[in-house]
Amino acid sequence: MGPGEGSTKSDLYRAYQLGQLIARQGWVLLTGGRKAGVMEAASIGAKDAGGLTIGILPSNNTRSLCEAVDLAIITDMGNARNNINVLSSDAIIACGTGIGTASEIALGLKNGKKVVLLTDNRETQSFFTSLSPENVYLATNPKDAVELVKKILSSLSSQ
Amino acid sequence: MGPGEGSTKSDLYRAYQLGQLIARQGWVLLTGGRKAGVMEAASIGAKDAGGLTIGILPSNNTRSLCEAVDLAIITDMGNARNNINVLSSDAIIACGTGIGTASEIALGLKNGKKVVLLTDNRETQSFFTSLSPENVYLATNPKDAVELVKKILSSLSSQ
Amino acid sequence: MGPGEGSTKSDLYRAYQLGQLIARQGWVLLTGGRKAGVMEAASIGAKDAGGLTIGILPSNNTRSLCEAVDLAIITDMGNARNNINVLSSDAIIACGTGIGTASEIALGLKNGKKVVLLTDNRETQSFFTSLSPENVYLATNPKDAVELVKKILSSLSSQ
Amino acid sequence: MGPGEGSTKSDLYRAYQLGQLIARQGWVLLTGGRKAGVMEAASIGAKDAGGLTIGILPSNNTRSLCEAVDLAIITDMGNARNNINVLSSDAIIACGTGIGTASEIALGLKNGKKVVLLTDNRETQSFFTSLSPENVYLATNPKDAVELVKKILSSLSSQ
Repeated sequence: MGPGEGSTKSDLYRAYQLGQLIARQGWVLLTGGRKAGVMEAASIGAKDAGGLTIGILPSNNTRSLCEAVDLAIITDMGNARNNINVLSSDAIIACGTGIGTASEIALGLKNGKKVVLLTDNRETQSFFTSLSPENVYLATNPKDAVELVKKILSSLSSQ
Repeated sequence: MGPGEGSTKSDLYRAYQLGQLIARQGWVLLTGGRKAGVMEAASIGAKDAGGLTIGILPSNNTRSLCEAVDLAIITDMGNARNNINVLSSDAIIACGTGIGTASEIALGLKNGKKVVLLTDNRETQSFFTSLSPENVYLATNPKDAVELVKKILSSLSSQ
Repeated sequence: MGPGEGSTKSDLYRAYQLGQLIARQGWVLLTGGRKAGVMEAASIGAKDAGGLTIGILPSNNTRSLCEAVDLAIITDMGNARNNINVLSSDAIIACGTGIGTASEIALGLKNGKKVVLLTDNRETQSFFTSLSPENVYLATNPKDAVELVKKILSSLSSQ
Repeated sequence: MGPGEGSTKSDLYRAYQLGQLIARQGWVLLTGGRKAGVMEAASIGAKDAGGLTIGILPSNNTRSLCEAVDLAIITDMGNARNNINVLSSDAIIACGTGIGTASEIALGLKNGKKVVLLTDNRETQSFFTSLSPENVYLATNPKDAVELVKKILSSLSSQ
């Protein structure tokens, strides 16, 4: 998860590398599906590394669909589709910050999911850590984020 | 699309064969994802033929998930997820009939999709044909249904 | 519930009278909220008789809102909002027929609701009666429909 | 908007007073509808002051409904209903903080709504102010919050 139009260059490069690392783990990448920002960068990264990509679109058609998405789910639900994004994910990495990303992090935590924050933004880190200390993880780079997801997945499978 | 608990044996066998035929075309099978009825039979058929399967679940977890589904989308939206099923499909085959299936056929047609009816039920055939004669196709067996989908897809790609 | 742009004149006059009768019972009228067809006619009827009206809009703004709706619920969910319409209703009257109306009737029955059909369309009557004989009621005019709703409500309150 | 089970006593008293003040303005109170926390306290306050209350429920029935809610909208959408809450509101007051409330604030801002924060929590204030400085307002008590809403509404009506 991460910003669309409001992404920084750092967010985009990190998202591209995240996509690659996720694909190399054999995991499926799920994003918001649009041809913008972190969604697009991560999907391109995953395809460049031979992965499988799903995109959960907010619209009622595929006009905004990123070409690097293999499987488009068309919700026609606007921002409410963010709840489907997080429910359908075994683990969530938030790459960057912004209003839409904040809604996904909050919905993820509300649904009991664990969320890895990959952002340098102090307010984002301290806000979500204060709200849900047990389910928020802080990463400083994409490799770190993927290592944290591995731990999350192994704790899920041992439940 | 098709009934869950209310499926007839004929519906189930047809759904299994539909799953196989869909996989052999290289298409992705999308169903309602639950371990029941037409959804399950079609997913098992597609996996037996080496296909890829998506399931759009109505619940907020994977407890009801059919094991033959590769990719689960968790909506927590109950029957409103039927709208996502039809929006995300390039073409829709309704195998069997029932109240839930009727809602999917109606939502599919409402969203401008073409729907193939694979059912012997006369009321279903005449009701939907009268409502939307241009977008409803009648099939008498799974092979026939898949041939109709091929025509639908080629008309979409020529638009 | 009933068609928007595809309404017949008979649907509209019946919807207007239904709105009046519903308001006179002291009931709240819930419709799909748009400035079109049966939704609009019923809302105007209810306001003319001093009632309270709710509209559940499919869009993400109020541009399409009927002026006779007192309380607008904005869903941004397209046709998936039809599931909210039926879940939020104690009883459902379908005035007229059409693809969208068919999805509402089917979703209503799927969610266990009782539905009164006020339509002269034989295919609609026979299709839904065959699918759910215990929960479908046939009315021939607005007064008849409201009498059937009274029976439905009294059976709900005695449960 | 505000926390359910995680409300503080301060949140509850403030929500009760907010409900009263909102009703006295002649406004309709819209909450998440459940018999818990800020939703319940605000609804009781509004009814005690003779107001009209709407509740947008996450469930598929009214078992969790607060008795002080006049009109229940049943969504069966879980936390995705938070998007409907904010879209249907002319202005949003977040009373207290928490994960669910954070998702509502973020979804409100994402949809272009103005949000009044009535919380003493510094992380919440600084996080949302940093994300959306133009649309976030800080209030220190219920009267202050309602005055800010008046300004928001007058700016909307002058657009």
